[in-house]
Amino acid sequence: MSASDARLERLIAPVADGMARMREILVRQVAERSHAVADMTGHVGRFRGKQLRGALVLLAGDATGNSTDEHPAIAAIVEMIHLATLVHDDVLDGADVRRRVATVHQRWDNQVAVLLGDFLYARAFALSTDLSSRLASRALAEATRRICVGEIEQSTLRYDFELTDERCESIAGAKTATLYAAACELGARYPGGREEIGQELWQYGLEIGLAFQIVDDCLDVVGEESVVGKSVGNDVEDGKVTLPVLHAYRAADAATQARIREIYTQPGLAHRVQLLRSACDLLGGVESAMARAQQLTVRARARVAALPDSPARSALEDLSEYVLERRW
Amino acid sequence: MSASDARLERLIAPVADGMARMREILVRQVAERSHAVADMTGHVGRFRGKQLRGALVLLAGDATGNSTDEHPAIAAIVEMIHLATLVHDDVLDGADVRRRVATVHQRWDNQVAVLLGDFLYARAFALSTDLSSRLASRALAEATRRICVGEIEQSTLRYDFELTDERCESIAGAKTATLYAAACELGARYPGGREEIGQELWQYGLEIGLAFQIVDDCLDVVGEESVVGKSVGNDVEDGKVTLPVLHAYRAADAATQARIREIYTQPGLAHRVQLLRSACDLLGGVESAMARAQQLTVRARARVAALPDSPARSALEDLSEYVLERRW
Repeated sequence: MSASDARLERLIAPVADGMARMREILVRQVAERSHAVADMTGHVGRFRGKQLRGALVLLAGDATGNSTDEHPAIAAIVEMIHLATLVHDDVLDGADVRRRVATVHQRWDNQVAVLLGDFLYARAFALSTDLSSRLASRALAEATRRICVGEIEQSTLRYDFELTDERCESIAGAKTATLYAAACELGARYPGGREEIGQELWQYGLEIGLAFQIVDDCLDVVGEESVVGKSVGNDVEDGKVTLPVLHAYRAADAATQARIREIYTQPGLAHRVQLLRSACDLLGGVESAMARAQQLTVRARARVAALPDSPARSALEDLSEYVLERRW
Repeated sequence: MSASDARLERLIAPVADGMARMREILVRQVAERSHAVADMTGHVGRFRGKQLRGALVLLAGDATGNSTDEHPAIAAIVEMIHLATLVHDDVLDGADVRRRVATVHQRWDNQVAVLLGDFLYARAFALSTDLSSRLASRALAEATRRICVGEIEQSTLRYDFELTDERCESIAGAKTATLYAAACELGARYPGGREEIGQELWQYGLEIGLAFQIVDDCLDVVGEESVVGKSVGNDVEDGKVTLPVLHAYRAADAATQARIREIYTQPGLAHRVQLLRSACDLLGGVESAMARAQQLTVRARARVAALPDSPARSALEDLSEYVLERRW
């Protein structure tokens, strides 16, 4: 376990029991008699990640005095939706397949990855229809819609260096922060009513989700694969212009701007990653994007400060800093 | 409009008003402020197809005296789920992309097709959570799960000529007939109760859905592209062993069986399609599969015969023959 993972485990200790129940529900929900499906869900399960979104449901519930017996199920549904989006993110388009064919070691082909993601969505929605209130079904169907729209929008804005910060953040907000926001809102509100506190926790989730995405975007520019634990340079390869790049681009003179645009389209990924890293370091793009992420987490922290003192509230406060932790 | 389309339009005339309302709901549900999304849903809308599944919701409702104001919305949800599965079916795996690159004229890349399908699923589930009873959400989440499991199972059984008829049909049933069955069941049962009649209509839907799939499988072997209106030979290219091929294979001697297996793996699609067509014609595979499809539709017809006489019941009876209509 990495130092970062150990820190997260300590952070979410106040909801350890709920997390254990969530994991039991997850295992049960994806169980299938079909060996082919069971083999895949088992494989996906090993990459279950930090389950931060599920933890947020439980922490928001505890911190606002709103926990119910159904909170672990909601946490499981949120995690299943997250897993489905991850599986679908791994589907490559034709160009990618042709370009990356030597490095892609997919265990199953694209078509099956699509079906597995659909299966996870279907199980998530099925579980949500068993809950006593429909609030979770509605909030999560809406969150899923926003995630898709955000991703589709982003795909139309590749190689666009004229993006405003607002637009860039609204897309990152839609594609990543929406699920954090929905997790926190449901934790604080489910099964219903309590709109004001729900709205406040929704904003908390949106802000830390956005900060998390900005940190992720920075890592993709300046992180080391061995430290980050996943490949870097994906955004430059996909033509995605993220906040650190945008900030570096704006700080650059015309010649350097032309050079940055060139980096995005020239061949040779390793070289491009190196060049972009230097440009963003030099021009303060990463520094400036990280400052924005920090601003967001300060705001998020303030939103929960008024809640009664509790281990869960402290965890929400500390989580806002955890997402900033530099992993490079 | 083809003769087949005109015949279908006459068949579903008893629910023309409901179909018009369903289409209004569909348009409203996929509307998005995002231009990128709107452009795509507009494109998908032009390929809306026969909307047979939506019509079945309305016909089953009318024929069983169970129509409600919410039936057109259920029909729209069923059509959205169907559309999502179609969009996801179009996602190609890496091997397909490499093999078909010259013939693939995708308007958007794989990644965006996945997101668009997810968007349609999310809108379908969101609409279902607005209905007065949760029966639709539950039945359709379960149907979606079965569709995915069926497709995943099928992908693991490529090039398997030892399949039993039962297994072959249970997969075709899961991946195609499930949505027909759910459409008919919901039409007859929604908002709840009425389990017996729901079960009977579920079976009716399963049988005509399975017959429809078998006809489709036969068309893929012996249809002419210009008549069928879509490319043929997809199953042999994907390694899918369907009922007509299975029946031909079983009727063949050992040398011919080896030849059929060879056809599935040798290069040159046009030539393979021609060879497989001859083999299945010669060995009666298509004839025997079509006889099975007919048997299913006779059973389906008998299930609705006991319902009170009405234009909707007649339509259900005639639909069972419509799905058999040979289009080659």
